[in-house]
Amino acid sequence: MLEESVGLAAVTILAILEQAYFCLQVIQARRKFGVPPPATSGPAEFQRVFRAQANSSEYFPIFISALWLSGIFFSQGLSSACGLLYLGGRLAYFRGYSQSPEQRLGPLYFSSQVLWLLIGSSGLGVLLAFLRLYLAPGLLGGFGSA
Amino acid sequence: MLEESVGLAAVTILAILEQAYFCLQVIQARRKFGVPPPATSGPAEFQRVFRAQANSSEYFPIFISALWLSGIFFSQGLSSACGLLYLGGRLAYFRGYSQSPEQRLGPLYFSSQVLWLLIGSSGLGVLLAFLRLYLAPGLLGGFGSA
Amino acid sequence: MLEESVGLAAVTILAILEQAYFCLQVIQARRKFGVPPPATSGPAEFQRVFRAQANSSEYFPIFISALWLSGIFFSQGLSSACGLLYLGGRLAYFRGYSQSPEQRLGPLYFSSQVLWLLIGSSGLGVLLAFLRLYLAPGLLGGFGSA
Ligand SMILES: N[C@@H](CCC(=O)N[C@@H](CS)C(=O)NCC(=O)O)C(=O)O
Ligand SMILES: N[C@@H](CCC(=O)N[C@@H](CS)C(=O)NCC(=O)O)C(=O)O
Ligand SMILES: N[C@@H](CCC(=O)N[C@@H](CS)C(=O)NCC(=O)O)C(=O)O
Repeated sequence: MLEESVGLAAVTILAILEQAYFCLQVIQARRKFGVPPPATSGPAEFQRVFRAQANSSEYFPIFISALWLSGIFFSQGLSSACGLLYLGGRLAYFRGYSQSPEQRLGPLYFSSQVLWLLIGSSGLGVLLAFLRLYLAPGLLGGFGSA
Repeated sequence: MLEESVGLAAVTILAILEQAYFCLQVIQARRKFGVPPPATSGPAEFQRVFRAQANSSEYFPIFISALWLSGIFFSQGLSSACGLLYLGGRLAYFRGYSQSPEQRLGPLYFSSQVLWLLIGSSGLGVLLAFLRLYLAPGLLGGFGSA
Repeated sequence: MLEESVGLAAVTILAILEQAYFCLQVIQARRKFGVPPPATSGPAEFQRVFRAQANSSEYFPIFISALWLSGIFFSQGLSSACGLLYLGGRLAYFRGYSQSPEQRLGPLYFSSQVLWLLIGSSGLGVLLAFLRLYLAPGLLGGFGSA
């Protein structure tokens, strides 16, 4: 079954590559602005890049969880498409935040909305699976297994 | 198979919603105490809300991993129940920590113990699966596939 | 299917235990150097232990995602072996960083390279699965399902 989740898997790999890119940007910013580890504070420019990566890291496991739940219980196509939009939004968030705190807001709202879509479709999909399994196996497309 | 993991999936969605709630609380605390991004330090009240969310974010992927391992290799019922207890403990941690550092301790111990239960049952389940697969397929309930 | 992923599951449990160990080290460092929550700054010795755990936490969900993708789509044996190497590298990173920022570098490069190997094999595995499913089911070992 999981082997057929190539769409979700491909989006997950892109998400990993994006996080790797953010990490490399922080390493570069540490060099450029002279903020060697373990320090985490420095000029505002550094601070913004540092926080853009930290914030994206916090959301990464939430995004991956919602992506797979929605893809498995609702629709792989919709989930993968939302996943790509989310990753695009996060890239814009990172670039915007690197420029100024204000420029992070538009992409933040966008990626949050896409994330809510993934959470909503996960919830709907899990609810339908629950009904199919426990309440009305005969009614909701469970003919094959009934 | 995964489609039958509705219990684990439902707990995962609740965990995502809880993290979203924590994030919204940080955003509100940023406004209330005047700590605009990228700043992360401010009055102690802000600091505690900020850290309560950051700490819960750190534990989120660990929790999700243990929840699913325990649910797939040991028991979905036990895992889902532990998952709900853990999320309740984390909510109490967040609320307690927001009040004072001391009030985070009770819920922290509670949620840690539940997490250890999930880790322990994961370990036991994986060990049994290993024995079943590689060492004694005939002895440990592998009759069907032998 | 997932029940057969005992190698990946075992490595995941080890990864969870390692993170738990790092957390306990931070708690101990908080006591030793007198840095009670919600504070996150203190003497350089504390700062290094704190950041070593924080950095490993950031990478944890990325590592787990790459481990399972590579294990499911490419090879469980290779993935599990890389997983063990990665966890060894992270332990060395944590210990090195606790001593001095310089001593984190060797293990960091090592664990990054192992992570890239997992990401690369994930990418290759997903690409092959994609070809098998959509483009040339007859050519790439899809005889069984054709
Ligand atoms: N959050 C990391 C992202 C990039 C990263 O992984 N950096 C490596 C190489 S400079 C590291 O060891 N960082 C130390 C740290 O995170 O404290 C950082 O702040 O540096
Ligand atoms: N850790 C986040 C949690 C809440 C969040 O995601 N906030 C959004 C909107 S204020 C953000 O862009 N935070 C900037 C940051 O994390 O540096 C925070 O400290 O703000
Ligand atoms: N990042 C954590 C790792 C260890 C941990 O989970 N500590 C518990 C007990 S001291 C905690 O509640 N930490 C408070 C915090 O993370 O702000 C820390 O800095 O303390």
